[in-house]
Amino acid sequence: MQSHGYSASAFDVLRYRSGAKVSTADHLAVECPIAFEFNGISHAVMLATPSDLIDFAFGFSLSEGLIDRPEEIFDIEVRPAETGIILEITVTSRCFDRLKQRRRSLMGRTGCGLCGIEALDALGIRPEPIKEKRSFSRQHILAAVRRLPAVQPLQAQTGSTHAAAWLSASGDIVHVREDVGRHNALDKLIGAVSKADLSFSDGALVVTSRASIEIIQKAATLGIGYVAAISAPTSMAVELARTCGITLLGFLRGQDYVVYAREQDLIE
Amino acid sequence: MQSHGYSASAFDVLRYRSGAKVSTADHLAVECPIAFEFNGISHAVMLATPSDLIDFAFGFSLSEGLIDRPEEIFDIEVRPAETGIILEITVTSRCFDRLKQRRRSLMGRTGCGLCGIEALDALGIRPEPIKEKRSFSRQHILAAVRRLPAVQPLQAQTGSTHAAAWLSASGDIVHVREDVGRHNALDKLIGAVSKADLSFSDGALVVTSRASIEIIQKAATLGIGYVAAISAPTSMAVELARTCGITLLGFLRGQDYVVYAREQDLIE
Repeated sequence: MQSHGYSASAFDVLRYRSGAKVSTADHLAVECPIAFEFNGISHAVMLATPSDLIDFAFGFSLSEGLIDRPEEIFDIEVRPAETGIILEITVTSRCFDRLKQRRRSLMGRTGCGLCGIEALDALGIRPEPIKEKRSFSRQHILAAVRRLPAVQPLQAQTGSTHAAAWLSASGDIVHVREDVGRHNALDKLIGAVSKADLSFSDGALVVTSRASIEIIQKAATLGIGYVAAISAPTSMAVELARTCGITLLGFLRGQDYVVYAREQDLIE
Repeated sequence: MQSHGYSASAFDVLRYRSGAKVSTADHLAVECPIAFEFNGISHAVMLATPSDLIDFAFGFSLSEGLIDRPEEIFDIEVRPAETGIILEITVTSRCFDRLKQRRRSLMGRTGCGLCGIEALDALGIRPEPIKEKRSFSRQHILAAVRRLPAVQPLQAQTGSTHAAAWLSASGDIVHVREDVGRHNALDKLIGAVSKADLSFSDGALVVTSRASIEIIQKAATLGIGYVAAISAPTSMAVELARTCGITLLGFLRGQDYVVYAREQDLIE
């Protein structure tokens, strides 16, 4: 698995187990400020696990709609700074114009909660419905969820990270990315899938977290037709999935699960 | 428990259990855009569960350092809008000047990830060490964690929300607040504690989530000396807790737990 920097870090801690105290080393997931710069202009800072940063740069740019295709990124430099890591991304002048346009419309606001969407009105923007969608096997999804823990090395080490996985049409887990943040894990995965030139319309996304509206929004932006979340979805996530025609599964536990949207596209 | 608006919403879903399919209604946690306006100026939009909004307004203002005391808020109007809810907050002119000062320094940046902290340099700002701290009983914390599920009605209904609870020095759970977002739950709790005129230096915070750096940062800003997280902390959270002298417990499971920072302040 591609990796930059370090994902886990050892800390001396005191562990109490059945009343006994042990001084030991504990591996914790690293989170670190990752600054995105596009053509020299500072755009955003995310707190993320500093691994798979090239994937993160591609995926963030795609899922935020700053680029439409990986080829629109000419270069990515990963530059360590005193308090974090700077991703210096060089994009086409067309993408940079789009970015500047977007920045002007946000001028003078402070950002919070929703990345880069900072007014109630802006939230009214709904992604387009999924255009291209093939059927997908529910058994492939259930099987992948069972196999997932084996391909989450950072989670095994730290117990505090989320994963996002991409399933091929035949049910193989072709890419997995991990991060302390569930949206970062997804952005890293989106980057990995797009770099591998796989089609988002031919496969399914599995996330180990809840399904938040941001996850559905990113899926809709990329044209991902199937989203399975191990935990619960929120109300807005379900509404958006129904609006966009995304099949949404949640609460995946063994053979049990709940279908929240567009069951008709699932096959056995 | 104080509440505004609605916290859970019923959806028709398909539930598969042991191979059997049931068409049923599922209660999902509601998330909704909540816009913060200070003295008529739009400040930030958070995605949050629309309950306890007055607490949210107080707690967000305090933990973001926009006000120092609840009395600096003169009025809060909760105004439903088409796509969310607007909190119209009226603060003293001194606080409003501070807010404008902060906004000027952020002018022209888009926000992401860390609320209102949008440059790597800005992340270098460390909250002050905890000044006033009394000892606290570890048994009180363990007992509170066991009792917590009984005072999380929204979690019982939806299975997808976080809670933040405030323990008195004698170990009572005096306030609990729930939200789809862990930082929102904490902000609501901070608002409830400050409105009740309780001292943050005399008690402990329990969160059902992981301990992220933002949670420790908010605790440090308020002078909260004890933080217990049911799940894992991240590396930066541990580092910041150690820097600030906050006692940090994690991975609370029955009688088992891990102490990540400042064990010496805990008593039996």
